[in-house]
Amino acid sequence: MTRPAAAVGASVDDIDTPALVIDLDAMQRNLATMAAFAREHKLKLRPHAKMHKSAAIAKLQVAAGAVGVCVQKLSEAEALADAGVSDIYISNEVIAPHKLARLAQLARRITLAVAVDSTLGVDRLAEALKAAGSSVDVFVEIDVGQGRCGVAPAAAGALAHQVVSHGLRFAGLQAYNGRAQHLRGADEREAAVRHTVALVRAAQASITASGMVCPLVTGAGSGTFAFDAATGVYGELQAGSYLFMDRDYADNQTSARAPQFEHALFVKSQVMSRSTSHAVVDAGHKSHAIDSGLPRVWQHELEYSNGGDEHGILRPNATATLAELPRLGDTVWLVPGHCDPTVNLHDHFVVVRGGLASGVVEAIWPIDSRGCLV
Amino acid sequence: MTRPAAAVGASVDDIDTPALVIDLDAMQRNLATMAAFAREHKLKLRPHAKMHKSAAIAKLQVAAGAVGVCVQKLSEAEALADAGVSDIYISNEVIAPHKLARLAQLARRITLAVAVDSTLGVDRLAEALKAAGSSVDVFVEIDVGQGRCGVAPAAAGALAHQVVSHGLRFAGLQAYNGRAQHLRGADEREAAVRHTVALVRAAQASITASGMVCPLVTGAGSGTFAFDAATGVYGELQAGSYLFMDRDYADNQTSARAPQFEHALFVKSQVMSRSTSHAVVDAGHKSHAIDSGLPRVWQHELEYSNGGDEHGILRPNATATLAELPRLGDTVWLVPGHCDPTVNLHDHFVVVRGGLASGVVEAIWPIDSRGCLV
Repeated sequence: MTRPAAAVGASVDDIDTPALVIDLDAMQRNLATMAAFAREHKLKLRPHAKMHKSAAIAKLQVAAGAVGVCVQKLSEAEALADAGVSDIYISNEVIAPHKLARLAQLARRITLAVAVDSTLGVDRLAEALKAAGSSVDVFVEIDVGQGRCGVAPAAAGALAHQVVSHGLRFAGLQAYNGRAQHLRGADEREAAVRHTVALVRAAQASITASGMVCPLVTGAGSGTFAFDAATGVYGELQAGSYLFMDRDYADNQTSARAPQFEHALFVKSQVMSRSTSHAVVDAGHKSHAIDSGLPRVWQHELEYSNGGDEHGILRPNATATLAELPRLGDTVWLVPGHCDPTVNLHDHFVVVRGGLASGVVEAIWPIDSRGCLV
Repeated sequence: MTRPAAAVGASVDDIDTPALVIDLDAMQRNLATMAAFAREHKLKLRPHAKMHKSAAIAKLQVAAGAVGVCVQKLSEAEALADAGVSDIYISNEVIAPHKLARLAQLARRITLAVAVDSTLGVDRLAEALKAAGSSVDVFVEIDVGQGRCGVAPAAAGALAHQVVSHGLRFAGLQAYNGRAQHLRGADEREAAVRHTVALVRAAQASITASGMVCPLVTGAGSGTFAFDAATGVYGELQAGSYLFMDRDYADNQTSARAPQFEHALFVKSQVMSRSTSHAVVDAGHKSHAIDSGLPRVWQHELEYSNGGDEHGILRPNATATLAELPRLGDTVWLVPGHCDPTVNLHDHFVVVRGGLASGVVEAIWPIDSRGCLV
């Protein structure tokens, strides 16, 4: 565990670099905007905590109206439960018997749900829960265009039937289309949601044909939630990135239907080398994930190019001159390309109140489930 | 801090997934091969510990003949020093005064060196060392084709002169060309080294013209070290990746001049979803870095495609059929695309003796400087 890059009460200037910094004012505006959207649309909000991995943030989301959070891994759920989060949905499959035994133990102390997409998975889950004497909500995952996990919609009814035949609670459908989130055009995303919803309806028909009801459809992400909400099919939204708003999501074309969010997550970096043609900052891809592209330089006409694990190279962008280049020792703020794996590189959030220019460190939040892979 | 994915003495089958696993037999062969190469060429070996971030491994390297290790960040040096590594070179610039004050304190307890590439950096370093009453070796970094940090070769003499004018020890030139390491053709890499060496000689001439001698040239990586060694210019090799050998380095065309290395670092993963067309493993890019491309599936005719943060999608490769697809629950071993940032995602190495098929966990090594960014 590394030590935090600043102490509570320090000024922004005194945050060591590179550091992962939350603009708390911006984050709270994003939090309130999404909570209001869910309220207005009478939808449950269960933000994805795979993004922030922080119990402190999960609790703020619940305080603002969220019913709980999602995670992707059992160990994430355990870490957040240990830090006081009491309602967690593992929106992913768990197959290994020793993991299922742990999951069943976790279900004894928090409200827990999990996704399934195989008969083997359901059988093993039922066995583990029986052994522990605990229960969970079970969602049947369907493949709605992601091409990853999930059964075909027509197979949903049979799997749901297997769930209830074991005496487990069938809680609904897991229907998330990750590919749709980053289609740049708003029309493209809306079209992808139409396709998704047709598949969800087919799954619902399969469930009805099996003589059951589908209590809930859960899914949606920060790129499509407004379209998902408008379909009337989703009862619960899982969007997570809205809270921090990374460069990749900001590159999406906006839609009049969706509220807008601000960048609230930054990497503070420092120029540690300077030539006549470029500046080098101390933040490379060990400081921010680049799976969804490079970071954007905040409020400067500079282009960031990849300098490897520990360096980033800055040059004036197409509209700027060399006068724009920062000097040796200057601070440069970066907007990460993808927030989820960026957060996973750090042990703490440095939480700033009052803006990046002259704010004060209000808190250090541990990233409780950082590195929780199993 | 996450808990290790296995206990010492466990069988390979019992390692939880996903987990970062070292094939210790392969690693020790790689260790011995590079140590022998350095001995035969009468070169110092100072492997880059930015790659493994482990004091246990650094000590094995030193025991095999390395003079010490390199790191890129002050906090990496501190973490390794805390874990018992006593000779460390920060092959990178440190500019912030508060960092330099820490660096000067660290120099009181271990043998420490650092790189410089600016007069401001030298002035601040001298001031910090004076305040602490400590000393370090100072390397002048020159830009040898990386286009990142480092002064122009012609400016090396003036900067070295400034170093000694402060009463600091000028230890030589830092001359690493990262770009050259991954040129696929052996001829291309050799040509890049010729270019690098011409720049090193220019820097040496600049130092001689300033009335000084250049005690050492340090640099080289796992892609070029054999060519670097053959030039007669380098006195010290910094290669690090040879020890684990990632997919990206293995994709380089080999050269008769360079000894060969084996893959020794793997991500153990498990199939957690399976359709008729593909299998999904529980290791995505939160388990292995993809900045240098996707992992290779070990010993199976399968292609890994990106399934996001927590998933990988497997399909038969061009020469295989669907019969090659693993079943739900099966183990799949992945060779990461790039070892350095992959290691940085994990808290522990699970160290296996006796091979991946039927070996036993011999040790759990903490990744001491994981996340050490500042």
